[in-house]
Amino acid sequence: MVKVAILGYGVVGSGVAEVLANHLESIAKRAKEEIRIKYILDIRDFPDSPFADRFTKSFDQIVNDPEVQVVAEVMGGLDPAFDYVKRCLLAGKSVVTSNKELVAAKGAELLKIAQEKNVNFLFEASVGGGIPIIRPISQCLAANDVIEIAGILNGTTNFILTKMIREQMSFEDALALAQKLGYAERNPAADIEGHDACRKICILSSLAYGKHVYPEQVHTEGITKITLQDVEYAASWGGVIKLIGQVKKLDDGRIDVVVAPMFIEENSQLANVDDVFNGILVRGDATGDVVFYGKGAGKLPTASAVVADIIDCVKHFKARKYLYWEDGAEQYVLPYEDSVVSMYIRGHAQDVDAAAEKAGDLFGKIRRLYRDGADEQEFAFVTTQEMKVREIQEKVEALQKSGVSVDSMIRVSDL
Amino acid sequence: MVKVAILGYGVVGSGVAEVLANHLESIAKRAKEEIRIKYILDIRDFPDSPFADRFTKSFDQIVNDPEVQVVAEVMGGLDPAFDYVKRCLLAGKSVVTSNKELVAAKGAELLKIAQEKNVNFLFEASVGGGIPIIRPISQCLAANDVIEIAGILNGTTNFILTKMIREQMSFEDALALAQKLGYAERNPAADIEGHDACRKICILSSLAYGKHVYPEQVHTEGITKITLQDVEYAASWGGVIKLIGQVKKLDDGRIDVVVAPMFIEENSQLANVDDVFNGILVRGDATGDVVFYGKGAGKLPTASAVVADIIDCVKHFKARKYLYWEDGAEQYVLPYEDSVVSMYIRGHAQDVDAAAEKAGDLFGKIRRLYRDGADEQEFAFVTTQEMKVREIQEKVEALQKSGVSVDSMIRVSDL
Repeated sequence: MVKVAILGYGVVGSGVAEVLANHLESIAKRAKEEIRIKYILDIRDFPDSPFADRFTKSFDQIVNDPEVQVVAEVMGGLDPAFDYVKRCLLAGKSVVTSNKELVAAKGAELLKIAQEKNVNFLFEASVGGGIPIIRPISQCLAANDVIEIAGILNGTTNFILTKMIREQMSFEDALALAQKLGYAERNPAADIEGHDACRKICILSSLAYGKHVYPEQVHTEGITKITLQDVEYAASWGGVIKLIGQVKKLDDGRIDVVVAPMFIEENSQLANVDDVFNGILVRGDATGDVVFYGKGAGKLPTASAVVADIIDCVKHFKARKYLYWEDGAEQYVLPYEDSVVSMYIRGHAQDVDAAAEKAGDLFGKIRRLYRDGADEQEFAFVTTQEMKVREIQEKVEALQKSGVSVDSMIRVSDL
Repeated sequence: MVKVAILGYGVVGSGVAEVLANHLESIAKRAKEEIRIKYILDIRDFPDSPFADRFTKSFDQIVNDPEVQVVAEVMGGLDPAFDYVKRCLLAGKSVVTSNKELVAAKGAELLKIAQEKNVNFLFEASVGGGIPIIRPISQCLAANDVIEIAGILNGTTNFILTKMIREQMSFEDALALAQKLGYAERNPAADIEGHDACRKICILSSLAYGKHVYPEQVHTEGITKITLQDVEYAASWGGVIKLIGQVKKLDDGRIDVVVAPMFIEENSQLANVDDVFNGILVRGDATGDVVFYGKGAGKLPTASAVVADIIDCVKHFKARKYLYWEDGAEQYVLPYEDSVVSMYIRGHAQDVDAAAEKAGDLFGKIRRLYRDGADEQEFAFVTTQEMKVREIQEKVEALQKSGVSVDSMIRVSDL
């Protein structure tokens, strides 16, 4: 019998306890060992929980108990999660986590400790909830060079954008609805500002290319500035707006990584990933495009991914798993201004035709977009010639100097 | 250094050699060992191959060489593949294969030998080509009860159906085009009669539910009888026709498994899986729907999956992998006639309104379908009340006795 501890009894933690208890037999069959919860760490009391006798408020009790072989960290946040996970690994316990903030900030460091202590540190649940993605990238695609990963990595923002696209709901109304339905937190910043998606693309990048990418290295835009006008222009262009986390390997060994709303063509595999669903595209040199799709969050999907990692730890006490990446480096990420992209630009001017002509002069070929109900001073276009973000910014400044107001800029994806 | 042998130098085999040679360094890094091809078994000569010095015509040389630790069987077919694989496992070598016919027919037996000999028998490439699916089901979804698996498992038939749907090409023309493009073989029976998809759903069923399902236990229909009329009626119903392999767990412990063309609703995740792509939906009790999408065949995707398995073997010489299922049983699969379904039925009659009325009397509520250009004697409908296939067959007989000719019957999926 293997004894495990769960750190944190929030949504995911209670789900992990539930899955372990409800699938006791089938899990024992798969793990070839019975798996029992010995402790649940939480500062709150849960006298009515079916696990009431397992609760403790003392982390030391857990870390000092040699019977505990696997620890599931599902508290979230860095403090005290980082300290706890580190101490568990140093104490020779395997750790699994759903904590994307922790893995994105401290993955390399924790993987190194795990390697030194010959234990496992697994985190399938940190990206994509119940969608298998960490393991497929690290194992199944091992014989591939990953050319690019791009994904809709955050369900909350995807729900909001879907409501804006399909039902012409305003951003504010869609956010309020997401909060009402429990898809968005009261403080939704981590989702709508793109930080959550950023952590996930950091984890995927680190895994795919073997070197840690830190959230502060990634240019990150949220969806708070997206308006219904933009959504309409995207439709007239032939697509939709999605919040995309994307990383590409460059020929010089660096990576180009970004989180931003993007215009996505209608026939792209990611364009139809709607509502709270996530979709992750992995482009390999041998496999071509492989897409993983499913609910990217939620109590049971995430909990089941955590439990799958626990099972994997139990099966691999002797043989460590494969997961590893090196520390990051300062010059490893291409500066955002050097990314080469096309851009959608919306603005207004006294004379929109003159403004469009000016834009054409500046950007080379442009494609003007139109929408019903636009007032006479509004205009929009996409640049059709790719150029560095830096150049686009310079040209936008020049456009503004000529008397045009630029109200919105959104990347045009090549997905 | 680990030495491997490749059995068969056809499309996949030459791809495996190519991937191993081209990714030598990155594979060594991932496997933590250099992986070298020692032998390639083929009855043909390849004097101009870069691997010319590794070819042998003697299987005995391979199986008797203790240096060979991993064997990749990529010959296809049962004879001599089964004998070779069995002897390699008995000789204590790990085996990986892309051979779905072998795994579908002999999986339980070979997995048992692998277990006894404490070696690995892996077959990620046998389903979905380069799409990771075997491992995600067995590992990542380990904490789930798999309620259902349904997939577009054969790229050739999906290409043909896509051409029929999107370009109104006839079945015969689409097949000829598929052959011209190399997507279909000169003898296309295994694809178009559904046998290939059948082998794959057998493997997925065996894996998901732990008991072997044999191809002869699975009701299998191909797409040779699908006409452009059917495609048009599917569109007027609000969907498309796809060849689906599907398995569901029943409450009594049996499974309901089938391969057949089905009407799929337009907004289903599988409806937009087009051309040679595969899409596989796994419905778990905790994760909900997870979909895997990508190219299901092809030299390099399949080869990269084989090589990923080789890497996994090399990493797990000490700790055997998880894959295992029991022998099958005769009563384990629900008889097809007991499946409960809705059905699309197309026929012709002197008086189509009278025929439709008769159908309504027999089937309860029906929904009539219409298409442009139908002649006066043609009619089609879907039954809206689910019933056993056996009952539907009886009612169809009754309908025919009333003077109606039934020309086509296609299942209506609930996907």
